[in-house]
Amino acid sequence: MSGNTLGTLFTVTTAGESHGPGLMAIVDGCPPGIALSAEDLQADLDRRKPGTSRHTTQRQEADQVEILSGVFEGVTTGCPIGLLIRNTDQKSKDYSAIKDQFRPAHADYTYHHKYGVRDYRGGGRSSARETAMRVAAGAIARKVLAAQGIQVRGYMSQLGPLNIEFKQWQSVSENAFFCPDPDRVAELEAYMDQLRRDQDSVGAKITVVAEGVPPGLGEPVFDRLDAELAYALMSINAVKGVEIGDGFASVAQRGTEHRDEMTPDGFLSNHAGGVLGGISSGQPLIAHLALKPTSSITTPGRSIDRFGQPVDIITKGRHDPCVGIRATPIAEAMMALVLVDHLMRHRAQNADVRVTTPVLGQL
Amino acid sequence: MSGNTLGTLFTVTTAGESHGPGLMAIVDGCPPGIALSAEDLQADLDRRKPGTSRHTTQRQEADQVEILSGVFEGVTTGCPIGLLIRNTDQKSKDYSAIKDQFRPAHADYTYHHKYGVRDYRGGGRSSARETAMRVAAGAIARKVLAAQGIQVRGYMSQLGPLNIEFKQWQSVSENAFFCPDPDRVAELEAYMDQLRRDQDSVGAKITVVAEGVPPGLGEPVFDRLDAELAYALMSINAVKGVEIGDGFASVAQRGTEHRDEMTPDGFLSNHAGGVLGGISSGQPLIAHLALKPTSSITTPGRSIDRFGQPVDIITKGRHDPCVGIRATPIAEAMMALVLVDHLMRHRAQNADVRVTTPVLGQL
Amino acid sequence: MSGNTLGTLFTVTTAGESHGPGLMAIVDGCPPGIALSAEDLQADLDRRKPGTSRHTTQRQEADQVEILSGVFEGVTTGCPIGLLIRNTDQKSKDYSAIKDQFRPAHADYTYHHKYGVRDYRGGGRSSARETAMRVAAGAIARKVLAAQGIQVRGYMSQLGPLNIEFKQWQSVSENAFFCPDPDRVAELEAYMDQLRRDQDSVGAKITVVAEGVPPGLGEPVFDRLDAELAYALMSINAVKGVEIGDGFASVAQRGTEHRDEMTPDGFLSNHAGGVLGGISSGQPLIAHLALKPTSSITTPGRSIDRFGQPVDIITKGRHDPCVGIRATPIAEAMMALVLVDHLMRHRAQNADVRVTTPVLGQL
Amino acid sequence: MSGNTLGTLFTVTTAGESHGPGLMAIVDGCPPGIALSAEDLQADLDRRKPGTSRHTTQRQEADQVEILSGVFEGVTTGCPIGLLIRNTDQKSKDYSAIKDQFRPAHADYTYHHKYGVRDYRGGGRSSARETAMRVAAGAIARKVLAAQGIQVRGYMSQLGPLNIEFKQWQSVSENAFFCPDPDRVAELEAYMDQLRRDQDSVGAKITVVAEGVPPGLGEPVFDRLDAELAYALMSINAVKGVEIGDGFASVAQRGTEHRDEMTPDGFLSNHAGGVLGGISSGQPLIAHLALKPTSSITTPGRSIDRFGQPVDIITKGRHDPCVGIRATPIAEAMMALVLVDHLMRHRAQNADVRVTTPVLGQL
Repeated sequence: MSGNTLGTLFTVTTAGESHGPGLMAIVDGCPPGIALSAEDLQADLDRRKPGTSRHTTQRQEADQVEILSGVFEGVTTGCPIGLLIRNTDQKSKDYSAIKDQFRPAHADYTYHHKYGVRDYRGGGRSSARETAMRVAAGAIARKVLAAQGIQVRGYMSQLGPLNIEFKQWQSVSENAFFCPDPDRVAELEAYMDQLRRDQDSVGAKITVVAEGVPPGLGEPVFDRLDAELAYALMSINAVKGVEIGDGFASVAQRGTEHRDEMTPDGFLSNHAGGVLGGISSGQPLIAHLALKPTSSITTPGRSIDRFGQPVDIITKGRHDPCVGIRATPIAEAMMALVLVDHLMRHRAQNADVRVTTPVLGQL
Repeated sequence: MSGNTLGTLFTVTTAGESHGPGLMAIVDGCPPGIALSAEDLQADLDRRKPGTSRHTTQRQEADQVEILSGVFEGVTTGCPIGLLIRNTDQKSKDYSAIKDQFRPAHADYTYHHKYGVRDYRGGGRSSARETAMRVAAGAIARKVLAAQGIQVRGYMSQLGPLNIEFKQWQSVSENAFFCPDPDRVAELEAYMDQLRRDQDSVGAKITVVAEGVPPGLGEPVFDRLDAELAYALMSINAVKGVEIGDGFASVAQRGTEHRDEMTPDGFLSNHAGGVLGGISSGQPLIAHLALKPTSSITTPGRSIDRFGQPVDIITKGRHDPCVGIRATPIAEAMMALVLVDHLMRHRAQNADVRVTTPVLGQL
Repeated sequence: MSGNTLGTLFTVTTAGESHGPGLMAIVDGCPPGIALSAEDLQADLDRRKPGTSRHTTQRQEADQVEILSGVFEGVTTGCPIGLLIRNTDQKSKDYSAIKDQFRPAHADYTYHHKYGVRDYRGGGRSSARETAMRVAAGAIARKVLAAQGIQVRGYMSQLGPLNIEFKQWQSVSENAFFCPDPDRVAELEAYMDQLRRDQDSVGAKITVVAEGVPPGLGEPVFDRLDAELAYALMSINAVKGVEIGDGFASVAQRGTEHRDEMTPDGFLSNHAGGVLGGISSGQPLIAHLALKPTSSITTPGRSIDRFGQPVDIITKGRHDPCVGIRATPIAEAMMALVLVDHLMRHRAQNADVRVTTPVLGQL
Repeated sequence: MSGNTLGTLFTVTTAGESHGPGLMAIVDGCPPGIALSAEDLQADLDRRKPGTSRHTTQRQEADQVEILSGVFEGVTTGCPIGLLIRNTDQKSKDYSAIKDQFRPAHADYTYHHKYGVRDYRGGGRSSARETAMRVAAGAIARKVLAAQGIQVRGYMSQLGPLNIEFKQWQSVSENAFFCPDPDRVAELEAYMDQLRRDQDSVGAKITVVAEGVPPGLGEPVFDRLDAELAYALMSINAVKGVEIGDGFASVAQRGTEHRDEMTPDGFLSNHAGGVLGGISSGQPLIAHLALKPTSSITTPGRSIDRFGQPVDIITKGRHDPCVGIRATPIAEAMMALVLVDHLMRHRAQNADVRVTTPVLGQL
C-alpha cells in the first residue's frame, strides 16, 4: 500500500499540502448506521486548530470540514466518507526565501533527495497541517468506539523539563496545554513566555489512554496492538519515541515488580499498559509519546542550499514554539483509529468465539 | 492483511508454535540474483539460539533451517523463499500444569479471550521461539542490504539498572550479552548470577544502528521510516518502548540543541537518529528499544484460572532470566527487514529521480 | 484493504455518490516530475461524459475536475494527488419513488441487505457515476505510461448482436460508439434508435489494447498481470465477463493452434493476448469485456419492496440504453492503472536485473 | 503486498517449485475452533492429484500434506496454519535440455525477462504443481464455509469442442473428467484418446457454483465479489477467461431478458450469476472459466533460445493433454477462498446491521 493510507479495514487516506488549495481524506470501511455530521468532526478539529492561544502559531485557519459522501440522512452508509477542508490563510510569500535552502531538522533535505521536486511553501506535505485530517478521521473513529463504550483521552505529561503528574481529566479541556493539573498551568505559561523571549523551542511528552477496551484486540505476531499503536503514534510529525505502559522504565524493573498479577477482582497493577502478547487485556490502554522541539525557530542555524553551498537560516513565519502543545488531539485520533481498525479485524476472525471466563475489572 | 505478514514489497509471513512440529516462513519479493544458502541464515540463527550461555534458557534447539524454494543454483530466483525449522527439543510435559491457568504478564489470558482456544505448550504462538524465523528472514534482508552497502548492527545498551556506553563493535560478538564494552562484561555476569539467586528477572535496552543508508527511504505521511521501524521493533516479544535518535530525551531539549545543523562537510550532529520528516537523511539510522523483564520466573505470583478462580503460579521450565540478552539479533533483523522493504518502495516510485545536490557525509 | 482502493503501489481511492455533493479520489504513489494539469484529466473525462450524444443519458454534468494536491509548479511531487468533481445536475426528486423498492438487476437489494441503509438517489454509490474518478485517475496513469512508451486504447467490438471488426483507430474517436469501423456507425445508430422505441436496453463488448508494454510485468502466482486485469475490468459496473487474448475461444483450440511460436523476428501470433504465465510477453496486451444490458428500462418489471411485498417497477429518469457505449474510456483507464502499478512493482524487485536476450518485436 | 499472497483477512501465501524440495503454504486469519486434520485436506488434494487416470500426467506424487502449526488438539487456534508437501517424483533430468530454450506458450520467456534467472526444471514456479497448495488451502476454506451452510462445487462444462450440459452432481465425482453427465463420459474418453494419437492438446471450460451464500458479500467499488472472483480464477494457470452468470452471452441480451425479476417467492431467474452491484444476492454464485490447451505437446514448435537463436522444441516429459481436466478442484478452491475472505470482510464492517426484509429463496 502507498504511504498515505492508514489501517487495514477502517482505512484513512489523506492528501493535501500546507499551502495548496486544501486537504482531503477518504475514510473507508466505516460501519453503517452511525449518526454523523460535520459538527461531530468540527469539535475535535477546533481542539487542534492553530491560533487559539498565544502559545501556538498565529496562522488563522477555519479548518471547516465538509462531508462529501458516505453519509445519508444523518447516518453513515458504509460507503467511503469523503472529507474536504479548504486552506484559507496560505500566505505563501513568507516561504519563497527558503525555496532552495534546507532548514535544519526539517524534512526539506530529505524530501528533496527522495522526490527531486518539493513544494517548499510551508513545508508542503511535511507540514503538521496534514494532521488536521487525522483529527477529522479520528473523530469518526471515536464515534464508532463510543457506541462500544470505548473512550480515548490524552493529556500533556511533560513540557520541556517540566514533568506534569496526572490529576484530573476536567482540567485538560480547560487550558491551552491539555494540562491535567490546574495548579501547574501558570507555570507552563511562564515557561512558554520565557521560551519565546529566548527565541527557542522545546519538546513535550503526551500521554494517551483508552478506557473500555475489551480484551482480545491485536493481531500477533506482527500486527500486535502495541506495534500498530507505535506505528500510528510515531507517524505523527515530530514524534521521536513511543512507550506502552511503563515503557523504558521497564528496563530497570524486575519481573516480580513488572508483572501485573491477577485476582478474581481484577488486575493488581497495569505496568503493561493494557497489552499482553500484543493483545489488549481489558485494562486501560496507555501510551506515551515524545515530541521533539519545533524545528522552526528564529535563532539562526547553519545549513546548506540545494547547490551544496553553506547558508545561515532564520525560519520566519508563524510557528508553534512547542509542537507538542497541539499534539494531544492528534495522538487521541491516532489511538482511536488503531482501536477501531483492530475491533473490526478481531470481529472478522473471532465473531463466533464464546468465552465463559469472566473479564477482569479494569484498573 | 493478516497479522503474521510483515512488509509491503519484501514480505515475511511466519507460522509455528513453541512446541509444535516446527516453524515456517515465506519470504516473498526478494530481488533475484542474490547469492544465498542455508549457511547464510544459520550464522544469524546461531547468534539468537538458546542454550549457548548459562545466562539464557537451557532449551536445546539446533535451529537448523532448510530452504525449500526460491533459490536455484545458489542464487535467489525472485520467487518466494520458503524456510523450515523443525522443533526438536519440545518437552511439552513441562507445561501441562498451566493448561487452565493464566501466567501473569504472559499472553495466556489475552489469547484465551481472543481465540477461545489456546496452544498452552510453552506459550504456543506467543512464545519468543517465533522470533527464530524473524532472524532467518532478516538474514536474507541483510544480504540484499549488503549489496547496497548497508550494514545493520546492534548491541545491548542497558541491562536492568546498568547503563552500558558504546565502546566498540568488536566486543559485541565476543560475549553472550552483545555488550559493546569488554570491560563491563564481568559486571554483567555478576549481575545475572545474583539475579538467578534472587529467582527474578530483569529488563534490557537494545540499540540498533544502520550505516550506509541512502537519503530518501520512507513513505510519509503514515509509512514513515521511523513509524515502520517503531512498528517492527515494538512487534518483538517483550518490547515496551521504541526511540528514534534522542527519543524521549528530545522532550527536554531545546530547538537550538536538538536540530542537526548541516555544512557542506556534513551534518554536525545526529539527534534525529537519521530520519527527518519520516525519510532517511543519509546519517546512521539509530533506534533504541526497551524490553521488559522476563515474565517466567520461579517466584510465585497470584493469578486466576480459566474458571475465574484464584491460583498461585510458579513458572517452571527453562527460561531466559533476561529476554533482552538474545534480543539483539532479532532487533537487527527487524531493522534490516524494514530497510529492504523501504529501499524497494522508494525505488518503485522514484527510480527516475535525478538529484544533483551532493549527499552529505555520514556522522 | 478496504474495498474502495485499487492498486498496490500506485493506488487510487475513491468516494462519492451519484447525487451527493461530489466525487473524490486520492491517487497515491505517482512518480514525481510528471507534467500534469487539470486539462490532462479533463480530456479523458470528456470522452466518458454523459449527455454528449443522443445515445447516452441526457444528464448534464460538467465533470470539471480540480486538482487539490500533489502537483506543484506544473509537475507531480510524489505526494498524493487529490481530485475533486462537484456534482451539478443532481435532480434527486426523480428517485424518491423507489426509496423502498428494489429495482431488478440493480444493486438496490444487495446494498440494502449488506449495509441496512442505502442512499437510494440515483443508485448512490452503486451508480456508474463513480467511474468518472476512475477515468480521471486513469488519465494520470496514462501520462506515466506515455513516458515509458506505453499506449492504452480501446474500442467497441460488439453492440448487442452486432459484431464489429476492428478496422482503424482513427474511427474510434470520431463517433459516439467508439466504433473502429466508420462504415458500421450508421447501422449502430439505427439499432439504438429501434432499441429506444422498444423501450429496451442491450449489452456490449469492449476490447482494450496496450502497446509498448515491456516483457516482465506481473507478479505470479496470484498477482499475475492477467489476474489483476480481470479484477480491475470486472470491477467496472455491469461487466459480466473478461477475456485475455483468445479467451473462451481457447477452449476449443488445440495446442498446436493456440501456442504462439517465436522466431528471432518475433512472435508469429498473439493468441495469448500478451501474457504468458501471468507476466507480460512484450506483445500487445489484449483484453475483452462483456457488459450486460442497462438495468434501468422503462418496460415495467416485477420486484419486491423492503417489506417483502410485490411491486411493479418502471425505472424513469435519464439512463443510458447501453452502458457499454461509454465504457471504453473506463476500460482504458482500468488497464492503464493496472499497468502503472505493475511497472512499479516490477521495478521495485527487479531494477538490477540485466537480461541480454533480445526482446522480440511486437506483433 | 507481494504476489504470492491471496486475500485480505483470510490470507494464503504459497511457495515452492515443481522440482524443488517441496511446497509450502501459510494460511493466516482462519477462525479458531474449526475441526481440522490433514485428512480433511488430503481428500481434496487427492481429487487434483496427478497420475490418477490415463488422461492426466503420469507423474507420481503422493501429495501428502503435513500441518505444521495453527491446529491444536484437533481444532484451529486462530494462529497461522503452516502446510508442507514434499515433492517426491522430481525427475529433473528430463528438463535439462530446455535450460536455455523458451518453450512456446510457456512462461519460460517471460520469467527469463522478468527475473534474469529461472528455475527451468519442470517450469519451476510457473508449473501447475503450485496449485496443490491452493487446493489444500481451499479445503480449509471449505470447512469454514460448511459451518455457515455454504457449499462450493464445480464441473467440466466443455472439453475442447464438446459442450457438456449439467445433469447431476453425483456424476461429477464418478469420472476422471468431472463430467456432470454420465452419458457423455465415453465420448470424452474417445476424444482424449484421439487427441493423444494426434500428439496435441486441447482447452476446457469449467463451471463453479456456490450455494448457500448469504446476500451482502462483496466490497464495492473495487473489491466487488465478482471482481475478486475474476482475479482469483484468472490467477489459475492456463485460464484465459472468466464469466459471472451469463457472462459474454449478456452482450447480445436485452434488458428485459437479462434482468432477474423478483417476487416474494424469490428471484425468477439467475442471469446475474448471484452478484448484483458487486455484492452477492443470495442466489447461487456461478462462474465459468476458460482454460487454454496445454502448452507442453510433443509436436515440434518453433522458438528461440536465450541467445536469440531459432530452435525447434519438442516438449517431452509427462504432461496433461488437457490441463482443464484437473482444474475443477482448483477452481472450487479459489472460489471457496474468495468467499471466506469476503464473509470475514463483510462481518468486520456490518456485524451490527439488522435487516428485517426477508432474504429471497435461492433459485
